[in-house]
Parts: sequence; structure tokens; C-alpha cells
Amino acid sequence: MTFGAIRILGVDPGLRNTGWGLIESVGSRLSFLSCGSIRTDAKESLAERLAVIHCALTDLIIANGPHEAAVEETFVNRDPQSTLKLGQARGAAIAALAIRDLPVSEYAANLVKKTVVGVGHAEKTQVAMMVKMLLPASDAASPDAADALAVAICHAQHRTARARGAA
Amino acid sequence: MTFGAIRILGVDPGLRNTGWGLIESVGSRLSFLSCGSIRTDAKESLAERLAVIHCALTDLIIANGPHEAAVEETFVNRDPQSTLKLGQARGAAIAALAIRDLPVSEYAANLVKKTVVGVGHAEKTQVAMMVKMLLPASDAASPDAADALAVAICHAQHRTARARGAA
Repeated sequence: MTFGAIRILGVDPGLRNTGWGLIESVGSRLSFLSCGSIRTDAKESLAERLAVIHCALTDLIIANGPHEAAVEETFVNRDPQSTLKLGQARGAAIAALAIRDLPVSEYAANLVKKTVVGVGHAEKTQVAMMVKMLLPASDAASPDAADALAVAICHAQHRTARARGAA
Repeated sequence: MTFGAIRILGVDPGLRNTGWGLIESVGSRLSFLSCGSIRTDAKESLAERLAVIHCALTDLIIANGPHEAAVEETFVNRDPQSTLKLGQARGAAIAALAIRDLPVSEYAANLVKKTVVGVGHAEKTQVAMMVKMLLPASDAASPDAADALAVAICHAQHRTARARGAA
């Protein structure tokens, strides 16, 4: 745990769209680096789609050298087929982070919203608005990129709080 | 599609135990190469466990150079938490196969049983017995290694049937 500049990669995995957002945290100061969405073609096989997610994240890590990663915990109260698809996307994504030795922190969706917006039941549009407020330079063009930045912000604030608590 | 010697890697993914089995198929003749189980420690984080599965499969592929891979399709009629865990293990495993350019075929559990045992509702012990009969040299010490060999056998027989159909 350090107060130096830390690059954090937030990831919002999904089989169709995997959002990602890269921020830098220096103490309690945050700055936007980049964000985007990895899209897969529903006409491709499951294996090809998982490979796309995995390889795109690997390329991002190699190009940007993040120090830590953050992923939102998953709801499982949807239909089982959706849970399975999301689980597979998460598996491919989290494995890509972990095999590159990135520490991966998971945060409950409510905690992400509470940290970013102030309330745990915030709407997606509120999250996107607050992300834009906290990271004025950000240009998240999709909800999943905004969500990925939100979980990165959540991690930045909680890791700093933890570090202060330990100091 | 070829009738030459083809090495097939069967995988039975699970977060706790991922079975794997490697066989060689020459026409309709099958032979056992090796099998085993990748075990992860429930005390480790999800990310570390997914990395173990992913890296172990990558090592197996590098060491043994399989040409094709086969995975059983997944039941989703279990509780959502189990479906999510299984999905994540599958995602990490299938991504490991796909990023090494292995064609990955998926087979329904009933088709695997029907192919190996002759009936779609066979018990796990019957599958293990038939695997031992079809691959006398095999030494599957766990049900998941036997299941992985079963899906590899299923793929071997269906790819040969497909090739004959196409000839």
C-alpha cells in the first residue's frame, strides 16, 4: 500500500460488452487516463468471444501497466443462462488480470454506487454523471465503460481509506 | 478435418476441481495419453483460483500440443451461486484453450453419456467404467478426470463421424 501514483484498471465484464476504465490515483486525487468497451460478436463461438475479452484485457495491461484491478461483484438473481454467460465472461476477464499478477479487488454494486454517488440504490445515469464529475476528462461513451470507471474510483477511495486506517 | 493422429484435450471445468484428459485419435482408434485434475484452494481468492486453472491448462497445452479441445456444456439448473462459480471456472478454462488457437467443441452432457455409455442418463460410475474400457491404459483417479476423458472420447467419435459424413 503506497500513496504514490497508482494506476487502477476497473473492469465491468460481460459476454457482449466488457467495459474498462483506467485511472490514476495519487493520495485522494484521481485522474482519468482512458476507457472503452470490448465488444464481442454474438455470431462467434463462445470460445472465440472469451478469447477476444481475454486478449483485449491482456493487451490493455501490457500497454498501460496498471498496478491494481477492480471488478464489480456479480448479481446472481437473474435467469440462470444470463448468470452462466456473465460468469464465463468474468472468468475469462479475471483470469487475464490475475495471470498478469494484478491484485484484483471485488466490490459489491451497492458499495460502488454508494462510494461514487453517495447512495447505494443510484441509477446508472447518476453513476455516469458522477463519474464525469469526478473525472472531468473522462469520455465514457457507453454505460459499461462508465461502470468500469466507477469501480476503479471505488477501489481508489477504499484502498486510500485502508492505507490511512493502517497508518 | 483429417484422419491422421489427432490429440484431443477434454476439459471438465470446475472452480474447485478441473478435470482434464488427453487422448489420441487415429481414425476410429483411440488411445490414452494422460489425465488429471487441477485443484484450487478454497482459501485463495477467486482471481488466484481462476489464474491457477488458466495457467495449468496453458502449461498442459504447451507441454502436450493438443490439436483440438472439447468441453461439456453446462447445466444451469442448479443454484445461481453454483452456476456463477462454474461459469467463471469455464470462462477461465475456455479462454486458456481459445487463446492458444485450439478449436473448442462443446457437447451436451447427455450426448457425452450416450456416446460413451450408450444411454443419455448413465450414472457417473458407468461413465468412468466405460472410459476405462475404451481407454484401458487410463488411470483417471477422480470423477472429473474421467468426465474429461469422456468428453474427449465424445469429440473424437463425433469429429470422425462428421469427417466420414463429409467424405
